[in-house]
Amino acid sequence: MGPVASEGQLAFGDSLVAAGVLTRSGVKGVYGMGTAFVAAFESVDRFVTESGRGDQPEVYRFPAVFSLEYLIRSEFLRSFPNLAGSIHGFDGGDAEHAALLRDADGLDWAAQLTATDLVLLPAACYPIYPMVSGELPEGGRLFDVLGTCFRHEPSDDPARMQAFHQHEFVHIGTPESSLAFRDDWIGRSQRMMADLGLEVVADAANDPFFGRAGSMLAASQRERALKFELLATVSSEEQPTAIVSCNYHLDHLTAPFGISASGGGTAHSACVGFGIERIVLALFAEHGLEPDHWPNETRKRLWL
Amino acid sequence: MGPVASEGQLAFGDSLVAAGVLTRSGVKGVYGMGTAFVAAFESVDRFVTESGRGDQPEVYRFPAVFSLEYLIRSEFLRSFPNLAGSIHGFDGGDAEHAALLRDADGLDWAAQLTATDLVLLPAACYPIYPMVSGELPEGGRLFDVLGTCFRHEPSDDPARMQAFHQHEFVHIGTPESSLAFRDDWIGRSQRMMADLGLEVVADAANDPFFGRAGSMLAASQRERALKFELLATVSSEEQPTAIVSCNYHLDHLTAPFGISASGGGTAHSACVGFGIERIVLALFAEHGLEPDHWPNETRKRLWL
Repeated sequence: MGPVASEGQLAFGDSLVAAGVLTRSGVKGVYGMGTAFVAAFESVDRFVTESGRGDQPEVYRFPAVFSLEYLIRSEFLRSFPNLAGSIHGFDGGDAEHAALLRDADGLDWAAQLTATDLVLLPAACYPIYPMVSGELPEGGRLFDVLGTCFRHEPSDDPARMQAFHQHEFVHIGTPESSLAFRDDWIGRSQRMMADLGLEVVADAANDPFFGRAGSMLAASQRERALKFELLATVSSEEQPTAIVSCNYHLDHLTAPFGISASGGGTAHSACVGFGIERIVLALFAEHGLEPDHWPNETRKRLWL
Repeated sequence: MGPVASEGQLAFGDSLVAAGVLTRSGVKGVYGMGTAFVAAFESVDRFVTESGRGDQPEVYRFPAVFSLEYLIRSEFLRSFPNLAGSIHGFDGGDAEHAALLRDADGLDWAAQLTATDLVLLPAACYPIYPMVSGELPEGGRLFDVLGTCFRHEPSDDPARMQAFHQHEFVHIGTPESSLAFRDDWIGRSQRMMADLGLEVVADAANDPFFGRAGSMLAASQRERALKFELLATVSSEEQPTAIVSCNYHLDHLTAPFGISASGGGTAHSACVGFGIERIVLALFAEHGLEPDHWPNETRKRLWL
């Protein structure tokens, strides 16, 4: 159940909690944000928004819950079943309620529940594709989304939260325009992180595809250079953390929803995703736990 | 499964979707927010923050997921089992994964899932009480929280979403200070809504307690005047919507977490909760679907 955290990662988490920057929730990998974290979070989120505003994206915000049917169509269950969160509810009457309360006292209440048509949203851009479906306009479309995401991987590493926010810019267009968008953002996002005083390394990466078949998918993704990550020191120097990822999806998310390029050709998509909590944690790790003492240039960029 | 929407409510939802203010998600009561809604949402949220800033609350933000154990201790399952959302996950290996994919094709994947230690957060203030536990300082404590909330009540009324945001100010102190806090905010929140050009009526109310026993709890809550709501016309004039609620909790949320008042007496709590989506919807209903044409006074208050 989730990777084991190193001593450095544990110590970083403890220092954040001791300073009141984060609070523990009783569940691994789920934290509350204290005042200093909230202020930094809002600033980083605004910094990301402003960095993409000149491109005039369409702005959408989607809830933390997502259609099970669309998740299945997106092939998420095929690739990452272990990370998904399904939402179950209670449909009974008074008698079942009495049983529910008996079972819940023993923390074994699942028997009284049934699956709903909802899951937790695993990535900020998923709701876009079912919304877009059909033929794209010339030049494709560009979106700005901020999403409340969930991945079931309980960890003691504060940089690996189960519940977190992704701020993404997403392009849907032709294969060429999607690849160009992704490549452009590899450079732009590196400059953005440098502007915040964060040292990052860009590297080819792969998603954590599940199981035996998954290791082949991961190798193929890396070989075809579909995913790049910006890595920074957050909770451990030995195990740097991906704080930004730049992804070329081919037609994996457009084909299932019947999206075609202008003129009827194949639509592809690409996104750049900023892990807001992870960038904030990288700032705390690099510049210290008191934002008042962060470098002037970083503070200026973040309107602090 | 959730109340039936009136024709007026259906028509209001359709007009919002047609204007691109909201987008449908494939699931009842779950919407995406388009550009105009996002801008109004951020403005209303800031308006709420600024209205309470002078009281210097401690600012916390908590994720959309919450400890099952704490939800049980809060008695939520006793009072509102039908509204809860439990998070289930997949713990299997390759063989179970193959079965999962077979079942998921028929949208019946629940058999392969097990309950996690997480539920969806049903109200923004719930994570505060387990965090506070122990003896309060003199004068109690005051919090500002914005939460991503979930209640399983699929409805076609856009004012009754399954996933929504509450912005709350929460006081934990003595019985006297809690009641005074709640009463103060009944007046303050009415003036705030008037400043936005919204006509509201304050009325004693009760939560939708479940089942036979629940109707007695609801009657008692109303008789003891523990809950007041500000009602506005959103999707229907006949069925106004609660856009703000002012609640005196007695010791329901403090006693389960061992919170005591300064000096060791009984701690009570109270909160004012602003339903951000509902306030935004009330603004669209009252002032029209184009924020550029809202009254000057409303626009000024919202920095639009």
